[in-house]
Amino acid sequence: MKHASLLAASTCMLLSLAAGPAAAQFAKKEDAIKYRQSAFTLMASHFGRMTPVVKGQVPYEPEPIKANVALLRTLATLPWAGFGPGTEGGEAKDDIWLDEDGFKQAQQKLQDKLQALSAAADAGDLDRLRQAFGDVGASCKSCHDSYRQKK
Amino acid sequence: MKHASLLAASTCMLLSLAAGPAAAQFAKKEDAIKYRQSAFTLMASHFGRMTPVVKGQVPYEPEPIKANVALLRTLATLPWAGFGPGTEGGEAKDDIWLDEDGFKQAQQKLQDKLQALSAAADAGDLDRLRQAFGDVGASCKSCHDSYRQKK
Repeated sequence: MKHASLLAASTCMLLSLAAGPAAAQFAKKEDAIKYRQSAFTLMASHFGRMTPVVKGQVPYEPEPIKANVALLRTLATLPWAGFGPGTEGGEAKDDIWLDEDGFKQAQQKLQDKLQALSAAADAGDLDRLRQAFGDVGASCKSCHDSYRQKK
Repeated sequence: MKHASLLAASTCMLLSLAAGPAAAQFAKKEDAIKYRQSAFTLMASHFGRMTPVVKGQVPYEPEPIKANVALLRTLATLPWAGFGPGTEGGEAKDDIWLDEDGFKQAQQKLQDKLQALSAAADAGDLDRLRQAFGDVGASCKSCHDSYRQKK
């Protein structure tokens, strides 16, 4: 019996590791919550710091924006692994686990909008960047409205 | 006078933005602390999840490890921007600001050890990976011992 459950545990570990970085290994629910919240904190910081540029408050320098958007896209792949089964809590609404398809669609929408932001940044086109930045922000807000507790 | 300080503020914004993602823009000290702690949380998670592999508890799969190490290297460039002037607090010892050179050397040591980890992961060599993983861990610990408050 003990052997069987050890085997099951190893198999789980193996499966989650085989899925690579996207499948985080969290010993405790609190670790998963802290992980996803940390990823969102970094995402918000790297998104928000572009605001003065899209508002025209500081000159647009294509290269640092491009690097920042690339980093933002990498960060935006991370938090979802922290919403595994049994990790309810933090600021997350239960709807995340009750409406998995909807939550997945919201993630996909963000990735799509980030891809457009990335294309705009690569093109060095401030007007496109401004539009795409707004679309990413709207995608963040829409997901927060649906799946994050009101503060 | 008001005009001059506005100009100074814009110049600062510009300079920090020009430095790209490495120079984070934090409206408040608390934002900087939250940012750097979030980056360390993600680093610890992506480092720690490789432990079962280097301990031989799960089989070594080169590709997911390579991807994870690449992500870890990206994350490890982030927290330092959150230690700007006037951001003392959190778990940070004041020595960070009193011994800036020492803190910079500790950061560099981590980057060097991560580069070795990355080379080992790219080579797909578990023995080298194990050694390099230990070296990165030792670098984390040494910096924590010097610059992080005891818990």
